[in-house]
Amino acid sequence: MRTGRVEAFSDGVLAILITIMVLELPKPDGPTWAAIRSDLPVLLAYVLSFVYIGIYWNNHHHMFQAVRRVSGGVLWANLHLLFWISLVPFVTDWITEVLNEQRPAGEPPELTVPLVAYGAVLFAAGVAYFILQTTLIRAEGRDSALAAAVGRDLKGKLSAPLYLLGILLSIVNPLLGVAVYVLVAILWVIPDRRVERQLAHRAEHADADRA
Amino acid sequence: MRTGRVEAFSDGVLAILITIMVLELPKPDGPTWAAIRSDLPVLLAYVLSFVYIGIYWNNHHHMFQAVRRVSGGVLWANLHLLFWISLVPFVTDWITEVLNEQRPAGEPPELTVPLVAYGAVLFAAGVAYFILQTTLIRAEGRDSALAAAVGRDLKGKLSAPLYLLGILLSIVNPLLGVAVYVLVAILWVIPDRRVERQLAHRAEHADADRA
Amino acid sequence: MRTGRVEAFSDGVLAILITIMVLELPKPDGPTWAAIRSDLPVLLAYVLSFVYIGIYWNNHHHMFQAVRRVSGGVLWANLHLLFWISLVPFVTDWITEVLNEQRPAGEPPELTVPLVAYGAVLFAAGVAYFILQTTLIRAEGRDSALAAAVGRDLKGKLSAPLYLLGILLSIVNPLLGVAVYVLVAILWVIPDRRVERQLAHRAEHADADRA
Amino acid sequence: MRTGRVEAFSDGVLAILITIMVLELPKPDGPTWAAIRSDLPVLLAYVLSFVYIGIYWNNHHHMFQAVRRVSGGVLWANLHLLFWISLVPFVTDWITEVLNEQRPAGEPPELTVPLVAYGAVLFAAGVAYFILQTTLIRAEGRDSALAAAVGRDLKGKLSAPLYLLGILLSIVNPLLGVAVYVLVAILWVIPDRRVERQLAHRAEHADADRA
Repeated sequence: MRTGRVEAFSDGVLAILITIMVLELPKPDGPTWAAIRSDLPVLLAYVLSFVYIGIYWNNHHHMFQAVRRVSGGVLWANLHLLFWISLVPFVTDWITEVLNEQRPAGEPPELTVPLVAYGAVLFAAGVAYFILQTTLIRAEGRDSALAAAVGRDLKGKLSAPLYLLGILLSIVNPLLGVAVYVLVAILWVIPDRRVERQLAHRAEHADADRA
Repeated sequence: MRTGRVEAFSDGVLAILITIMVLELPKPDGPTWAAIRSDLPVLLAYVLSFVYIGIYWNNHHHMFQAVRRVSGGVLWANLHLLFWISLVPFVTDWITEVLNEQRPAGEPPELTVPLVAYGAVLFAAGVAYFILQTTLIRAEGRDSALAAAVGRDLKGKLSAPLYLLGILLSIVNPLLGVAVYVLVAILWVIPDRRVERQLAHRAEHADADRA
Repeated sequence: MRTGRVEAFSDGVLAILITIMVLELPKPDGPTWAAIRSDLPVLLAYVLSFVYIGIYWNNHHHMFQAVRRVSGGVLWANLHLLFWISLVPFVTDWITEVLNEQRPAGEPPELTVPLVAYGAVLFAAGVAYFILQTTLIRAEGRDSALAAAVGRDLKGKLSAPLYLLGILLSIVNPLLGVAVYVLVAILWVIPDRRVERQLAHRAEHADADRA
Repeated sequence: MRTGRVEAFSDGVLAILITIMVLELPKPDGPTWAAIRSDLPVLLAYVLSFVYIGIYWNNHHHMFQAVRRVSGGVLWANLHLLFWISLVPFVTDWITEVLNEQRPAGEPPELTVPLVAYGAVLFAAGVAYFILQTTLIRAEGRDSALAAAVGRDLKGKLSAPLYLLGILLSIVNPLLGVAVYVLVAILWVIPDRRVERQLAHRAEHADADRA
């Protein structure tokens, strides 16, 4: 089986997921600037989820560039990844709903549980991505272009613990959780080479220190 | 006519169907863990329908791999299949709505009719898939790669009676109906070769016993 | 410019249009068979619109099969066609809403205006299709494969007056209008050769009678 | 990296954005001609946004025709453009909502703020398009086919100041703002060569006058 249709189907699903969130964005509450201002947190949640789905599309695209054939197992590993990403709009909309709820003046929105769920979905998507990567490498061989391209994959290895940190911090203080999720997104958007080099450099130092 | 555009259009429709269900998922009723817990049956219904549409995409993908040309009849047989699959989100949302209805404490949701409808849609999609397969084989020829690839197709032949069983059991007890629908999905997700071999093995034994 | 991306974009838009209608299908009013029965007219409206968008995808697919290059004018003629087809879900939802309105027992739904709008959208889409065809033939040349493939195009020429007839009859009696819209759809779904031959045969007879 | 998948993903996103607006179109308020008439401003807002997204698809298509390879930076510049275009349905729906609000007879809808937001989104999309173009030219080289094709790009340079003008005029009088947005759309829909020639002609004259 060639990769063409798996890519086309994944592109379709990711294109829909990245855009349907806009359907659920609550319209500003009246035609005033104040209404837009109070809609701002909701718009920022949309931006973050848009960036996360964009990151997954980017990584998916990069990974399949190095793939020549897909097996039945790859199809299911890919659907498994798409399933978790499909829950990103769901948890984003939940956050949106909590942000928009009427509450007594001065009281902050109760974001702990939705933010933990957000982190859990990101974590599960990260694990699903790792499973897909492993399935692909097993099919392509340990000395394939893909195995070489994945290499150390420091970002991938850092993401999972950072999502867990985000979940924990969301319980302490929602804003800290959001900060971690934003940080991971920035980490992925920054061009690969520089970050990878820096992280590799630090990792070497750490190895050296340990030795 | 080449198959490219039929595949692209089918990919588009299936990608939309598998993802729009998430739009109708009711957001948890408040930012609490209890709200997520009571949303769980709805999420499981989503998972099941996601898996079913994934199965159809998988099978569609496999089947067209062996097809070289499409006729006008194939286009309509394909649209007919997509029509029935397009009703999967509809019946899933109906189940969701019944699950979310307010009801006296302790009283179970009235799932019989929606579950019968769910099974009927799956059954009709199965029949439509069979019609598409037959139309394709007629166009490709009895000694084509497709005809060979379809072969005995034990799963395909088992699915239809199992859906009917699911419909009947839904009338007796909704949970039994759900169990059958879950079973058929698992049957399709398990890698082909092992199941096929096992089933073929059993079928041979049965044949031998009858002889 | 090659045709690949115009086809891909049109496939995307048509795939979305054919499936989003299911999002607006009102769920049956309670988990009973009676609820499904009273949802039936709505489901039939969905089927009709699904078939119409399927017909447009089919014809679009056939037409572009014979096209080798596209100009800027073709891109806009194509978007113009997609615009009118995008209104099919809109008028279908309107019909759905009128069908679902509470009304005194025994009183029929007031379908005249929505059905006239439905016919008007189909008529406009038919005209837009004709404009696209003409733009393509002008670009490809009068002796091109496309010009030959279009040929007499009896169905295309019959559709426009039949839509107008449907609009007129909708004013007299909504059911007659629906009958005409169903008839045109059936005309397009029936395999081309037989109908075309029959119609060509009759046209020749009519020509002979006139002479 | 080849351009195929970037184009496919962008086609998917743009196809969804151009069609989901129809989901939010409010159905006419009752099955009468008067209801359609009072829905007309909403339908015209839909047409304008449909045309704008069509323009972006057209330009995107033209630009990538001349591109051979994409870098990581291009992927993000492309997602950035898609992000701003994804807000077009959002601001269109906001305008729709304001148009549909109940208000005392004779009082005009309060469109100033939504129309300023509409212009701001168009302006940001225009800037994002320019960034994408610049990123692509940097990757392809100053003497590439793309750099030559972009050339003077008078329309592109005119659009940004015209959007700003539209924003300013929306504050003075909403209708004037709408007029400017419609004008820019018409400017883009008119076949390129004629406009470009005329504008180039005038620009030369202006240069001559200044000299």
